[in-house]
Amino acid sequence: MNQQHLDDLFSFLRFPSISTDDRYRQDLLRCAEWLVHRLRRVGLKADLVRTDKHPIVWARTPHDPAKRTVLIYGHYDVQPPDPLELWESPPFEPVIKNGYVFARGATDNKGQVLAHILGVEETLGKTGQLPVNLHFVIEGEEEIGSVGLEKFLCENRDALRCDVAVVSDSEMLARGVPTLAYGLRGLAALEVKVTGPRLDLHSGLFGGAVANPITALAQLVATLHDREGRVVVRGFYDQVTPLEDWERVAWKRLPIDADEELLRESGSPALFGEKGFSTFERLWARPTIELNGISGGYEGIGTKTVIASSAMAKITCRLVPKQEPAGVLRLVNEHLRAHVPAGVELEITSGHTGPWYLMNPKSRNGLAAQKALREAFGGNEVALVRGGGSIPIVAAFRDVLGAESLLLGLGLPDSRMHSPNENFPIENLEAGMRLNQTLLRELGSTTT
Amino acid sequence: MNQQHLDDLFSFLRFPSISTDDRYRQDLLRCAEWLVHRLRRVGLKADLVRTDKHPIVWARTPHDPAKRTVLIYGHYDVQPPDPLELWESPPFEPVIKNGYVFARGATDNKGQVLAHILGVEETLGKTGQLPVNLHFVIEGEEEIGSVGLEKFLCENRDALRCDVAVVSDSEMLARGVPTLAYGLRGLAALEVKVTGPRLDLHSGLFGGAVANPITALAQLVATLHDREGRVVVRGFYDQVTPLEDWERVAWKRLPIDADEELLRESGSPALFGEKGFSTFERLWARPTIELNGISGGYEGIGTKTVIASSAMAKITCRLVPKQEPAGVLRLVNEHLRAHVPAGVELEITSGHTGPWYLMNPKSRNGLAAQKALREAFGGNEVALVRGGGSIPIVAAFRDVLGAESLLLGLGLPDSRMHSPNENFPIENLEAGMRLNQTLLRELGSTTT
Repeated sequence: MNQQHLDDLFSFLRFPSISTDDRYRQDLLRCAEWLVHRLRRVGLKADLVRTDKHPIVWARTPHDPAKRTVLIYGHYDVQPPDPLELWESPPFEPVIKNGYVFARGATDNKGQVLAHILGVEETLGKTGQLPVNLHFVIEGEEEIGSVGLEKFLCENRDALRCDVAVVSDSEMLARGVPTLAYGLRGLAALEVKVTGPRLDLHSGLFGGAVANPITALAQLVATLHDREGRVVVRGFYDQVTPLEDWERVAWKRLPIDADEELLRESGSPALFGEKGFSTFERLWARPTIELNGISGGYEGIGTKTVIASSAMAKITCRLVPKQEPAGVLRLVNEHLRAHVPAGVELEITSGHTGPWYLMNPKSRNGLAAQKALREAFGGNEVALVRGGGSIPIVAAFRDVLGAESLLLGLGLPDSRMHSPNENFPIENLEAGMRLNQTLLRELGSTTT
Repeated sequence: MNQQHLDDLFSFLRFPSISTDDRYRQDLLRCAEWLVHRLRRVGLKADLVRTDKHPIVWARTPHDPAKRTVLIYGHYDVQPPDPLELWESPPFEPVIKNGYVFARGATDNKGQVLAHILGVEETLGKTGQLPVNLHFVIEGEEEIGSVGLEKFLCENRDALRCDVAVVSDSEMLARGVPTLAYGLRGLAALEVKVTGPRLDLHSGLFGGAVANPITALAQLVATLHDREGRVVVRGFYDQVTPLEDWERVAWKRLPIDADEELLRESGSPALFGEKGFSTFERLWARPTIELNGISGGYEGIGTKTVIASSAMAKITCRLVPKQEPAGVLRLVNEHLRAHVPAGVELEITSGHTGPWYLMNPKSRNGLAAQKALREAFGGNEVALVRGGGSIPIVAAFRDVLGAESLLLGLGLPDSRMHSPNENFPIENLEAGMRLNQTLLRELGSTTT
């Protein structure tokens, strides 16, 4: 590995750019300024764009109307490193061990962003120009909800107009397996509160005479699924697009054992879910209703003989194409209202929603990405996957800029994003630089 | 009302004898010493008996083997007065309004104890002797589990041997309705923990692939009852003694509308419970399984898209004659183990148990109590009731001293025990003094 590239990576990683913690505000600013200077050295026009909290770094080439335009997204903020005592080396003092750099932000997202920056620098060094018009948009608020980003996109909609966005902020399916994620699940949140007595009651003096809100809540949420994990809310699956045949085949051929992998990562006693679907199908192409939290009555040590006044559950649905979040919330609401046990009152609060995302990996952009991935990773077959989570900025690129996103993760499954001992393989810094070059070439040569 | 009696009541109530809070330790001691002096003035031999925490006050007459022996139990410790801002007058500065004294401990239990003390004093003043051998046992740890009392009973088993215990530490059915509670429910506690993944998981990355412990817990505890409130644990009702015909009739004739009363007191939107039983029957003669607490995952503000590693529920069963606590715990354990949803592990921890209590109100002691109650309350018909809660000391009197207890509550249903603005009607201080006199007379004249 080029020592200068490692020096850049180490400099980038040494900033404790923890966006959740206001004590690091100056560190985020210094990190953003470092990026601006670095991108100027690359040869781009680069600026700091103020937001209410941490600035956005925006770098770009001059606009050539004959070329397609690509926006590469990234973020320079990182998760807090806690619990510190579990780190084998200090989180903001990067070290290399066995070919991996260990530091907070190594994979999420500094290593991946830097690969693209260094790739662009290499192209410009060799040829003096890029095959596309390019924007780097590198924000400092990804770990706190990208609050300033959408405003920035809206305010600079025309200047930022692009043909495609590139997001390297996720993981590859496995080491050495170039990965294109062409879909994500959406989200719809709600909170359910069941209320019985006006205040907590003595369970001896009242038990048997009035309904118990905790029992009622348990009975209510237990009606959402059958015992085999299928959601039994009427109409819940109606809008679900069935998997295409090629997807089913492609996912079966993916070079990892999903069941073994998921069992190991989760530490669950067994896998569990809807019958008739493989684990990848359940994770990527089937919607869920998950209880994220439940609470009621006495939760401390020992016993308190109380009938709680109320009990609460937090619920999120993961959505797949073409489920409409508001419609799903309506169905779940109707189901819950139809199943309220006797003797209690039900209150439902709808929470935030986020759309699912799906692009066609056989579109021109998709094919260009696949070709670039294959070439960058030594000819290895490209894994076409979806993600089970949500990446809200992808919807913003689609809705504000009209651009689809190529999700080209360079992290490895054991990168420990958000956990102690986060790491990034140096080989993927190099592969990422190659990918950036093949990708911009392929995207540039795609006829518009 | 005799001003001297009111002065005594006010003096007793002014001690902030809050046993849960160690800062009041000296106040408890002073309160106990006040009682010892007061009981000596009555003419009894009275002593302070040290325990690990707050002393027991033990007062007694000389033992005459020709007489029956009665133990009157009470406690001088009180609940904390919080929330203070809801009191209309300071909790330890008693005031009289509309015939009620307002203060912490007015009903629970100082007013009721003092009625017995003043009753004994009046008898001794009139006749120079009592119709029975008498023990007062007045503890300072009732609100913290009567920790020192059982040891005291065991160590003084012979000296305390008695024919019957009298406990005035509960409520009358209604104002002016003399009440004998001849039964109590027992208790059996357990805690259930359902565990899935080794640690909390991202619900996007894992949702659909593994079982959700909160969902599994809800499904599990939802199997305990049918939708009409009946417990469906196999064998749960097998040991339940059916109500006797006279009880069913007596409870129907009780001079209050149970449904209206319970609705008002609980503030529940409706009454609810096992079909085929009246509200009093469900409260006093039917066992329950209540969820006292439930907890798992994210319980804060907003949304956290997490699949919790585990979820927990706290459960207590209320037991009735002749359910055996250990047997019931075994049945509930078996039921839960037989109904664990797939993909999670179940851990059950058994908690404490307490036996139910039942005496025959038509026994000699019971008939004596009824006669005394009727006479003390102007000839009003005596309500024969049971209680839905548990009074652990009653089991101790039975098991250690071999004595049954007469539960002769003098509080009113809106006495606000344990709540702000606790109060006690002055008329019941007087009625309690009369009751003490008629009761000791009747118990003394019962042939042994």
